[in-house]
Amino acid sequence: MIEVETADRLSVDHDELVGFVAKIFAGRGVPADRAALAARALVYGDAAGLGSHGLANLTRLYLPLFDDRRVAPAADPTVVADRGAAAVVDAQRTLGLWTASAMLDDAAERAARHGVGVCFVRNATHFGCAGFHTRAQALRGRVALLSSNCGAQRIARPPGGRYAMLGTNPLSIAAPAGGADPFVLDMSTTAVPTGKIRAAARRGEPIPEGWLVDAAGEPTTDPAALDRGDGFPTWLGGRPETGAYKGYGLALLVEVLSALVSGAALGPDAAAFTGSGGPTGRDDDIGYFAMVIDPRALHGNSSMAPAAGAMFAALRDCAPIDPAHPVGYPGTREGERVRAAERDGIVLDAALWTEIMDVARAEGVDAPAGTLR
Amino acid sequence: MIEVETADRLSVDHDELVGFVAKIFAGRGVPADRAALAARALVYGDAAGLGSHGLANLTRLYLPLFDDRRVAPAADPTVVADRGAAAVVDAQRTLGLWTASAMLDDAAERAARHGVGVCFVRNATHFGCAGFHTRAQALRGRVALLSSNCGAQRIARPPGGRYAMLGTNPLSIAAPAGGADPFVLDMSTTAVPTGKIRAAARRGEPIPEGWLVDAAGEPTTDPAALDRGDGFPTWLGGRPETGAYKGYGLALLVEVLSALVSGAALGPDAAAFTGSGGPTGRDDDIGYFAMVIDPRALHGNSSMAPAAGAMFAALRDCAPIDPAHPVGYPGTREGERVRAAERDGIVLDAALWTEIMDVARAEGVDAPAGTLR
Repeated sequence: MIEVETADRLSVDHDELVGFVAKIFAGRGVPADRAALAARALVYGDAAGLGSHGLANLTRLYLPLFDDRRVAPAADPTVVADRGAAAVVDAQRTLGLWTASAMLDDAAERAARHGVGVCFVRNATHFGCAGFHTRAQALRGRVALLSSNCGAQRIARPPGGRYAMLGTNPLSIAAPAGGADPFVLDMSTTAVPTGKIRAAARRGEPIPEGWLVDAAGEPTTDPAALDRGDGFPTWLGGRPETGAYKGYGLALLVEVLSALVSGAALGPDAAAFTGSGGPTGRDDDIGYFAMVIDPRALHGNSSMAPAAGAMFAALRDCAPIDPAHPVGYPGTREGERVRAAERDGIVLDAALWTEIMDVARAEGVDAPAGTLR
Repeated sequence: MIEVETADRLSVDHDELVGFVAKIFAGRGVPADRAALAARALVYGDAAGLGSHGLANLTRLYLPLFDDRRVAPAADPTVVADRGAAAVVDAQRTLGLWTASAMLDDAAERAARHGVGVCFVRNATHFGCAGFHTRAQALRGRVALLSSNCGAQRIARPPGGRYAMLGTNPLSIAAPAGGADPFVLDMSTTAVPTGKIRAAARRGEPIPEGWLVDAAGEPTTDPAALDRGDGFPTWLGGRPETGAYKGYGLALLVEVLSALVSGAALGPDAAAFTGSGGPTGRDDDIGYFAMVIDPRALHGNSSMAPAAGAMFAALRDCAPIDPAHPVGYPGTREGERVRAAERDGIVLDAALWTEIMDVARAEGVDAPAGTLR
């Protein structure tokens, strides 16, 4: 085992790290094929530079879900209603890192027959990076949309309201871009996801204005306010005159598509009208909206690929204002990072490495080999 | 005819105004039933308080489309591909104020059979307020999504890019809220729609920081910069650290769903790499994404209405920070305004009233009666 100092950074082989995480999930009772997919989904966070949704969540989010039996590792999702192109599915608390990809695969089979396929999912758990799941569909030539509410977890307030009523409600779309890196948008409907706020809190650093407001609705740069219960994420759009109602509306779009239609737990509930207005509820019984469009089923031999390739190439080739900052589209940077991580390994800081060593010991799984960088 | 002064405001009966606009569209060759629906869609802008998408666009947008034969008033949309739940439709340049509702009605029939129905539409024209069309579905118990690109009209730049490549790409969702006003989100993916910027330019007023940037990417408060070609709409999210990439990504979501899949004209194109980077292209061959979800088809007798009613009531009933500003959700304010307009008439300012009188004379249609307010 490598002894590390606080300032050290280590590189770990991508596939070895995935194998390690898969063994941990399998040790918790997740069937091997699902564990392997879930491990890839989790490591994607670190590979794509979205560390707030990567390995750091193993000890903070996923292992506690197993400990508390809030995940049913070997259960099978059940179909509640099936209308061919669309189905309502009860995820039976399966591990969301796997479930979300499985639901998109199911929607893709529906789309192959009907042009479009949708799974409305209830009783699901946290799916990690939404973009991992949608990107996998785009790499197979499909357009995929995935959104999730946060069950009854309430941390963000309706504009002007005193009580937290909604989660950060992530939304992702991915589409093929000819032969180039797929277009992958993966966003919370708040200005930033909570992971970025908590990461700043752990580093003891202030956050930019525009991420959090205090109880009176005024901007705050103190990231610790979030978990103290007196800081509330700001909606995408910021102030009312620059579109706060749009971020809020998009969160409701996600709530409706993912949870209201599927019958999952909802954020907005009169049960939230308690105490100081701080966080209430828990992210159980999460709802997903998983939609796939199959261009081949719609267009037959008339491929969408040339138009997609030309469109995304035009964005990538657009001359920049500042030559040091080339133009891209959501997914280009992630694509480059994932390729580099698969080739050169994943770089982890000493704190995360130490966590992983501790997990390896506690779970009785051989730790991956690391190389000091 | 009432003589008006600049400062006057007039009230016009809602149904009379709709009948007047319907006669104008019918006079331009639009079949009577379509003309009536299109007139309601246009007047909805003024009724709901979204004046930038209301009657002001009759002379600025729709009549010129007829004059230039960019609208085919009596054509019939044709189905390019039909897979049951999903279809690709060529709108044949029919009047978008009608087409968008017709496409959602078509999607609703598909949804009644399959749970979900989608029309991917090419060769369409400007549909006015997206929320008019989706709201009509929500009033009938369905969830509806409608988005539109702007054909090859390019006015917004990718973050950091020198050339305008995309339109404002509107997106709407509506859902029933029990017996209350439906949830209706109707948003451009830029911070504000261009109509609001142009309205400020007509009034000679500066705009808030965060609506436009200049050629160098710096914020500008001069609304005239937009039509001079050296001002570019800001994406929803504002600065990079507060989510500009998300607004841009949502515009691409709309571009993919509405235009790439349907085969309509696309904004991002190497043809845009010309001149100073200002606007290029025209909003012909617009693409729509029109999706309807039918909860009855998915859930049978287990109605979604109680959960929807409770969810939106919780948002409406949330205690406000400032008692003078009650909490709502997108659609509550529009619902109140539409009811008031249907009851008390639509209030128009003198300039718009004068325009309408001129249109009545030019088109040979009796003007509606107005009452000074």
